[in-house]
Amino acid sequence: MSVLARYLPILVWGRAYSRRDLPGDVTAGLITAIMLVPQAMAYAMLAGLPPQIGLYASIAPPILYGIFGSSRALAVGPVAIASLMTATALTALSPPGSPSYIANALVLSFLIGLMLVVLGAARAGFMVNFLSHPVIAGFTSAAAILIVISQIKHLLGVSVPSGDTVETITGLFGHIGQTKLATLSIGVGTLLVLLLMREPLARLLGRWNLSPLTIQFITRSSPLLAVIAGIVVTGMWHLDSTAGVAIVGTIPEGLPSLTMPSTDLTLWQALLPSAALIAFVGYLESVSVAKALAGKRRQKVDADQELIGLGAANLAAAFTGASPVAGGFARSMVNFSAGANTPLASILTALLLAFSVMFLTPLFHYLPQAVLAATIVVAVVQLIEIDSFRRTWRYNKADFLAQTATFVIVLAIGIETGIITGIALSLLLYLWRSSRPHFAVVGQVGDTEHYRNVKRHAVRTDPEVLLFRIDENLYFPNAGYLEDSLRAEVAANPEIRDVVLICSSVSLIDASALETLQELRETLHAAGIVLHLAEVKGPVMDRLAQTSFIEHLAPGQIFLSTHDAVTHLRAKLYADPYGSAI
Amino acid sequence: MSVLARYLPILVWGRAYSRRDLPGDVTAGLITAIMLVPQAMAYAMLAGLPPQIGLYASIAPPILYGIFGSSRALAVGPVAIASLMTATALTALSPPGSPSYIANALVLSFLIGLMLVVLGAARAGFMVNFLSHPVIAGFTSAAAILIVISQIKHLLGVSVPSGDTVETITGLFGHIGQTKLATLSIGVGTLLVLLLMREPLARLLGRWNLSPLTIQFITRSSPLLAVIAGIVVTGMWHLDSTAGVAIVGTIPEGLPSLTMPSTDLTLWQALLPSAALIAFVGYLESVSVAKALAGKRRQKVDADQELIGLGAANLAAAFTGASPVAGGFARSMVNFSAGANTPLASILTALLLAFSVMFLTPLFHYLPQAVLAATIVVAVVQLIEIDSFRRTWRYNKADFLAQTATFVIVLAIGIETGIITGIALSLLLYLWRSSRPHFAVVGQVGDTEHYRNVKRHAVRTDPEVLLFRIDENLYFPNAGYLEDSLRAEVAANPEIRDVVLICSSVSLIDASALETLQELRETLHAAGIVLHLAEVKGPVMDRLAQTSFIEHLAPGQIFLSTHDAVTHLRAKLYADPYGSAI
Repeated sequence: MSVLARYLPILVWGRAYSRRDLPGDVTAGLITAIMLVPQAMAYAMLAGLPPQIGLYASIAPPILYGIFGSSRALAVGPVAIASLMTATALTALSPPGSPSYIANALVLSFLIGLMLVVLGAARAGFMVNFLSHPVIAGFTSAAAILIVISQIKHLLGVSVPSGDTVETITGLFGHIGQTKLATLSIGVGTLLVLLLMREPLARLLGRWNLSPLTIQFITRSSPLLAVIAGIVVTGMWHLDSTAGVAIVGTIPEGLPSLTMPSTDLTLWQALLPSAALIAFVGYLESVSVAKALAGKRRQKVDADQELIGLGAANLAAAFTGASPVAGGFARSMVNFSAGANTPLASILTALLLAFSVMFLTPLFHYLPQAVLAATIVVAVVQLIEIDSFRRTWRYNKADFLAQTATFVIVLAIGIETGIITGIALSLLLYLWRSSRPHFAVVGQVGDTEHYRNVKRHAVRTDPEVLLFRIDENLYFPNAGYLEDSLRAEVAANPEIRDVVLICSSVSLIDASALETLQELRETLHAAGIVLHLAEVKGPVMDRLAQTSFIEHLAPGQIFLSTHDAVTHLRAKLYADPYGSAI
Repeated sequence: MSVLARYLPILVWGRAYSRRDLPGDVTAGLITAIMLVPQAMAYAMLAGLPPQIGLYASIAPPILYGIFGSSRALAVGPVAIASLMTATALTALSPPGSPSYIANALVLSFLIGLMLVVLGAARAGFMVNFLSHPVIAGFTSAAAILIVISQIKHLLGVSVPSGDTVETITGLFGHIGQTKLATLSIGVGTLLVLLLMREPLARLLGRWNLSPLTIQFITRSSPLLAVIAGIVVTGMWHLDSTAGVAIVGTIPEGLPSLTMPSTDLTLWQALLPSAALIAFVGYLESVSVAKALAGKRRQKVDADQELIGLGAANLAAAFTGASPVAGGFARSMVNFSAGANTPLASILTALLLAFSVMFLTPLFHYLPQAVLAATIVVAVVQLIEIDSFRRTWRYNKADFLAQTATFVIVLAIGIETGIITGIALSLLLYLWRSSRPHFAVVGQVGDTEHYRNVKRHAVRTDPEVLLFRIDENLYFPNAGYLEDSLRAEVAANPEIRDVVLICSSVSLIDASALETLQELRETLHAAGIVLHLAEVKGPVMDRLAQTSFIEHLAPGQIFLSTHDAVTHLRAKLYADPYGSAI
């Protein structure tokens, strides 16, 4: 049962479900659905897909996530950056909107889902920790800028051939004369409505003493209001035919039919690298949001189970004609603060979306694309964290370099190269740092039994004895540095006859570090120096006892404390000043 | 001057050269040369190249290494594993021994040299630490087995088409009936001479009270004696024409002419991945040997300067018609134990090799290939470390898995896939380990001011206060785990109202970990819990003071010691048992 419950979190929250959870879940489900309908269509447009694909991505995937996911409040569906990455991946193979483009989107969802489930089964959730926060901020900010740039053409009503960032910007300037006034007015109007109906309206409503929930309900309806206004204005004056306003057009009615992603292995191979990157970025966003929300209510998120939950959601997308999904940042925050207590809120959102797809799609016919573009712009502008660059610069220059490099490469070369560079830079930075661990030569403080770093304190040292304190675990990436540092000390101080490694901070010595210690012992011995250990922890000692290390250490010893070592070695030096015992 | 001396170590040892160093250098230079002449031709054969290419690789490269390298005793020249990798890389492009095959060898040397010099200038020597010792042992053992298998055809005198391991073994069994008796006798005879003239002969000579140097001189001459015996026997009875013994044939006389590696960029691109792997493996072998030897005499090796030294040696190879080089393990041990005090020993070896190339090549005409094959087999058999698998299995199961996987993949798929898998496995293993750092919940020991792990000691704890000791630096790979562990504790203990992070082992908090701490502080606060810090080190405190972290910590505090924190928080709880102060 407990294993089953780990892999099926719905058994946990479902069994413990209480009637007191229901009002919060219903409210949150409703508010999130109101916010999601326009967003789902907008992100489908960003991905180069017909609007219904975004709606489909908001039905089955969140239900599957509700069954398998470990977060209580994560709202899963189409998200901005994954949609842009989907567009990049699919455009490389076929023209946007073509039948093969749409069919390939399913394959992408399928591959992403498969990879996430496999990684989850392998308990590889820890992998996500190896992307540093500054690199994530650099990547996200640049991706958000790319998304804004990609939407300008929809706001102006001009058509620009797709290309890289520079080509898009040049194209926009070249076609700026063809801007359609009606489209621009609708776009700018929507932007204003969306911006004014957030903070300013919330402050205003706050002064009227409305409850926070009501305020949230009203402000979160702004995208829906903008959609309705856009539809009414365009439909009433037939702006699509009279003023050339691009509209969404006919959206097929009814639930998605079951789909089977292509099993063409050549296609799989072509999409696999992009799928891996989208899976990584989507998981990264989801798990960060899920963790932050869970922490606020003393709940826990299981990083490995999140892989399975998100994987199941993407597999659901693949079999219901939908594009790749992830946990959205803004959407989950709304869901959480509107009172979602359990994944039932997300399931209700999905049911409301299913209802819209079944009965409301004809209403969206006259929806101007400029309204969707404005929705996207307002959503992603919040992801641009210029302030993060300033903070990173002040706190850590190496992190700043990695952040800026990732930012520049996403903008200049592309989102996939950017994220790969970011991952590589994070790892390099980490390896570089961790290969230079902290070691210290220590000496005695006065006549006490305390020993401190010779560089920071006035301490007493014996020229014949090197007291070398290791401040980290010993394993292969830093064992070489220990060896080098110790050998440098020994080479610089020809009087040294005994070396004591103080292992008070060492809880692990791996096979490589053990070999390094053995080599050190032998080469020091050849140079007439004896190696000792001190303050070895119990578990480390148990491990060492299984090897021949300790028996070969003689005449070196293992001392309980640094002070024991010093007392013993001083006595030996005094009794035998010429070292004939060695 | 000091910068110049760092990049040109010859200025250091050259200026300090004393007449007392000369006898050791001369003896070592001579013994190594005697050992190297047959080995150089043998490794050229292993690489699929004419014998003179191996001799050329033993002239200019060690001289350049003597100028730029930081090791005193490393003997640079053709080595076994790099030769096998060279054969693999070149065979993919053209048939062994063909003019383009030989020309491509120069390009390979050039690319390897270039990469090593660039990495050296970037001070990237630390990168080599990220391959664990068990993986290296697994790789080396499998590569040595591949080399032995590749030489069997020369020992039997049969011709087998080149292919993967299984094809080669099947081919050998298929052609075993065509074994040439004369070739087999020469091969087995050479193997016996080489094996008997090592340990058994050394023991015998030891009993006759000969000096260790004389013993070494005699035992190390065994390959040369085998070569002479092989030439005499084959030449006297013309075994090449009468019994079909494959011989080395005519070797061009004279020093290598200056060569210019091709600048065809398509070719560069094709060879670059292999060049990178050979550079990595060659550097790894060289720097391990160099470090071990330097340690025995209290000398230092500079890992970054070694990249430059080895890079210069490979560039020298590229411009003097030679194959890739590295520091050889056995050869360097011989050089060292024969008394090499400075790189002058290697330079003398190179001059003796130059002399052989100028005047002795006609003597090698009748040298049977079976003699060279036996030389290779005896040299590489020592690299097969079956015992290492047993030791790793006993000491660490995860290391054992990585070692075995590398071993199996080298044998089953190939040497390049094997080393890439090994690197990836080492890194994964490291990332996995380092993402699960050591944290402990601590409690008070009796009424003392000491605090210890609750899991290992009987200690006093307060249910409202969580004392959480961090035992490692905080940076992005482990910050997520800290967060998860802490949140799990808080979720499991609903009475907790204060969390104290004890930072006594933290010397670094990077930008990602700082953000994690900020998020923790906020989400804990939202759950009605106050975050405090204790025992923050001076440098870490200085860093934090540059951010807004400390001012936003309130009502959380920074305590000097864990005991201060406990005393303060107990007083607060007593004064305010219902927590209204929060």
